[in-house]
Amino acid sequence: MTINPIAVSLGDPAGIGPEILAKSWRERDNHTLPVFFGVGDEHALKKAYSGPVEVISEPREAGEVFDNAVPLLPVNTNDRTTAGQPTAESARCALDSLELAVGLARSGAAGAVVTGPVSKAKLYDIGFSHPGQTEFVAERCGVARENAAMMLAGPTLRTVPITTHIPVRDVPQVLTIELVVRKGRAAARGLTRNFGIRRPRLAFAGLNPHAGEYGTIGREEIDVIAPAIEMLRSEGIDASGPFAADTLFHEAARRSYDCALCPTHDQALIPLKTLHFDEGVNLTLGLPIVRTSPDHGTAFQIAGQGKAHPGATIAAIGLAAFCANHRAVSEAAAAA
Amino acid sequence: MTINPIAVSLGDPAGIGPEILAKSWRERDNHTLPVFFGVGDEHALKKAYSGPVEVISEPREAGEVFDNAVPLLPVNTNDRTTAGQPTAESARCALDSLELAVGLARSGAAGAVVTGPVSKAKLYDIGFSHPGQTEFVAERCGVARENAAMMLAGPTLRTVPITTHIPVRDVPQVLTIELVVRKGRAAARGLTRNFGIRRPRLAFAGLNPHAGEYGTIGREEIDVIAPAIEMLRSEGIDASGPFAADTLFHEAARRSYDCALCPTHDQALIPLKTLHFDEGVNLTLGLPIVRTSPDHGTAFQIAGQGKAHPGATIAAIGLAAFCANHRAVSEAAAAA
Repeated sequence: MTINPIAVSLGDPAGIGPEILAKSWRERDNHTLPVFFGVGDEHALKKAYSGPVEVISEPREAGEVFDNAVPLLPVNTNDRTTAGQPTAESARCALDSLELAVGLARSGAAGAVVTGPVSKAKLYDIGFSHPGQTEFVAERCGVARENAAMMLAGPTLRTVPITTHIPVRDVPQVLTIELVVRKGRAAARGLTRNFGIRRPRLAFAGLNPHAGEYGTIGREEIDVIAPAIEMLRSEGIDASGPFAADTLFHEAARRSYDCALCPTHDQALIPLKTLHFDEGVNLTLGLPIVRTSPDHGTAFQIAGQGKAHPGATIAAIGLAAFCANHRAVSEAAAAA
Repeated sequence: MTINPIAVSLGDPAGIGPEILAKSWRERDNHTLPVFFGVGDEHALKKAYSGPVEVISEPREAGEVFDNAVPLLPVNTNDRTTAGQPTAESARCALDSLELAVGLARSGAAGAVVTGPVSKAKLYDIGFSHPGQTEFVAERCGVARENAAMMLAGPTLRTVPITTHIPVRDVPQVLTIELVVRKGRAAARGLTRNFGIRRPRLAFAGLNPHAGEYGTIGREEIDVIAPAIEMLRSEGIDASGPFAADTLFHEAARRSYDCALCPTHDQALIPLKTLHFDEGVNLTLGLPIVRTSPDHGTAFQIAGQGKAHPGATIAAIGLAAFCANHRAVSEAAAAA
């Protein structure tokens, strides 16, 4: 079973995306990475990397090029971008690259999409209205954002933030039984579909300190999270909690579930990045395509200096291939 | 320089407090622990531990007893408490034990106080009106709770939650410039006084995802945290941030500060317990006395089964001794 080449959008060309794509390609044999290609600004890639780059015009050409050069599908190429200095133009390039890479995965020409780091602030400046790339990809796939879920995956931990890039003051309003149930379903289905876990164990964290301590430190656990868990259980999903978030991530606790679902962004992201900073992958669940992303930002402050670590991008390409292969095998088995 | 014996309140006698006190005493030589004594229910301690226990009537007797038995100053002793089954009576015993232990430290008869785990829910049932033991101890020491700070300390990380045991929905109202400044001052002074760090480096986390991403995901960073940092810097304190909380706790980041201050409880507690679950210590800064606590709860579900891990209590007693000795030496030097 061979999947089509994986599309990797370069993200903001002023960030570290071009550099970590090239470094990942250099490491392709050490990590037995599948064929992939960049989607983005050719000049930015060549500024970040002095080795071989070959321009392609469609994904299938990546396989012919891959052994000898970084294959690149160029987008908005110009020589005006300076590493570390994002502009409206570089944000536009990031958005167009994302759009093309997702479209290629949707069409099947690319086996999966890996999205490079973008600046949300710069995207908002040019009119981008989604909370993040995850919601954008969901929309382009025709999936309601509530039915998609952002999963962070590292070697010893998977987490899903139930709310993502919204102010903390808005979380109590946004956190509804319906939302928790939808994220729970997306997580359970996604663990089966992408990782082959037949009956995934979901652990839910509380929103408040000590999971509200029986209602004395907030009521969202009692009013929202517990009823949602009950509903998921009635659907046959192995859901438990709500648990105090601070005691959910030590080694013994992590062995008790396949994925922890957390009300806030930081509750889910802090433990993942504390444990697996250089190898954390963002995987979007609930989509018809496989989409992963390195779990870090544009790092403008070190862009163009050759210091960026490609570990998370290598892990993101590897996980995208794993999930895409797993889906292809399952679908072939189902069709047989 | 020898400090007086350390008072260790047993916490709720139905929890694991009695067991981990006895286990800590058994480990006294392996960890070169200073002389300490329990404060709490004699029956509960004897049910939890079949080895030697000796009742004392004042702290100085602990030194005579310590080599051969667990010294215990009894409080509310009765035989009605069952391990794992907290009651109003066991909560009352926990509160009285805490009160006595703190009083002994205040008087100087005890060199420091280590407070065992209590059930906040049960304490609230009997009329306890403080958010937690930290605020209670601050009040008993005549210190406004805003001027005290709860620090979590592990081998590679120290954190201070700026807000503690309050619902997340209340955090945006409670998080003021004044509060952030007070916690910053308490942290800076506490690091110097208790740990001997002359110019402590404080790193502040943002409240919102990605520290608000330049105001696009919440404004508390711009309106509250940044101005507070500015004020602390104008006072000569080495304060930096606000930083995205999720990227503040990996190994390289931890080396860049002496203490991370976080707007919410979970932002501060999650990384500490993820990294140092069995050795995390809660230290109250800003008090005239040294007060530490093992950083875990009553664990009623395993109480009475001999399974509780004494690591955090051992670490709490060790850190209390370290800080008390450090203060005694500094004060002697200042007086000379």
